[in-house]
Amino acid sequence: MRGILISIEGPDGAGKSTQIALLKEYLEQKGYESVLTREPGGTKISEKIRNLILDRENMEMGREAEMMLYAAARAQLVHEVIKPALEMGKAVICDRYIDSSAVYQGIAREIGIETVYQINECAIQGIWPDLTIHLDLDAEEGIKRKKNQAELDRMELETMEFHKNVVQGYRTLAKRDPKRIKTIDATLSIEEIHDQIKEYLEKILQ
Amino acid sequence: MRGILISIEGPDGAGKSTQIALLKEYLEQKGYESVLTREPGGTKISEKIRNLILDRENMEMGREAEMMLYAAARAQLVHEVIKPALEMGKAVICDRYIDSSAVYQGIAREIGIETVYQINECAIQGIWPDLTIHLDLDAEEGIKRKKNQAELDRMELETMEFHKNVVQGYRTLAKRDPKRIKTIDATLSIEEIHDQIKEYLEKILQ
Repeated sequence: MRGILISIEGPDGAGKSTQIALLKEYLEQKGYESVLTREPGGTKISEKIRNLILDRENMEMGREAEMMLYAAARAQLVHEVIKPALEMGKAVICDRYIDSSAVYQGIAREIGIETVYQINECAIQGIWPDLTIHLDLDAEEGIKRKKNQAELDRMELETMEFHKNVVQGYRTLAKRDPKRIKTIDATLSIEEIHDQIKEYLEKILQ
Repeated sequence: MRGILISIEGPDGAGKSTQIALLKEYLEQKGYESVLTREPGGTKISEKIRNLILDRENMEMGREAEMMLYAAARAQLVHEVIKPALEMGKAVICDRYIDSSAVYQGIAREIGIETVYQINECAIQGIWPDLTIHLDLDAEEGIKRKKNQAELDRMELETMEFHKNVVQGYRTLAKRDPKRIKTIDATLSIEEIHDQIKEYLEKILQ
């Protein structure tokens, strides 16, 4: 028996963490043992890579190095956490996964979607999500919600144009792969969003 | 005017550092301003990645993550050092480069040569060496020479079988690309090896 892999994607401020917490609760009610992961991070090695990526001291980081570091953190997460959990039949919920790289490095940094997917295909060892929830939110609104944070990290310090490209990038990916990626309007209420996620989930659990 | 890029490859203990020092001296006599780099490392960010890769605390590192980290360190080195130096017409000598990943991760770790080259093609931004010197040495001899070191790092702690696969892997690559990769017997004297390197170099400088 193989478990189920769900990734939650969207720009910063779209409400991913809130929905992930609700989704975990729901999956456990359905009898699934659940595992939460966040990217970049989720293992000892991946957290060290996360620190490298987000550290504001590393502003000279090139886009190719950045992409490879995200892929490295992801590869270790798949190796240590995601693959073993799926093999045990668990439900894995990923706060960001391969599509984040396709959007942030492939589109916003202009490395190209195909190149980024190709490289990350190796990092994820072919383990694609069964379902990807895309929380769609305009860049201005996302940044406004994030501004309450104490300190922004290296990625969040990017220009408004970058964040707009991210938002647009997610919409492009969702159109490319509508069977796997389901878009939900992140300005809806928490309950409404959760209900839509449950609906999409039911379809793949059947 | 574009500079010249020379990579020195081979198993640990083959005498790369010695030859690199002699080669640098020679290139400077020929009027080239030279830049030395080592992998993984060579920039502030790449050295941080190097520490992650070689740290004996990170024994649980998966092969895909390891490969991506080497690619990340290389990408940053190309971005900050190699590309700008070549654009200024300098001679760049790399202590290890893309072929090290093809051998260590592609062959010895069995990810596959093609996959590793494909991923690293992005990391090096298409900047291949003009000349690659392969110092060929049997695994037993290499390890014996290395044993004088105070402490072996995570890679050097690998099994003898791994090191044998590395030695064999380099021979395989050299056969695949004989125009670029030149093999020299590392049991020859320092002077003899240096003379052979100079000969190969003269051919591409013409």
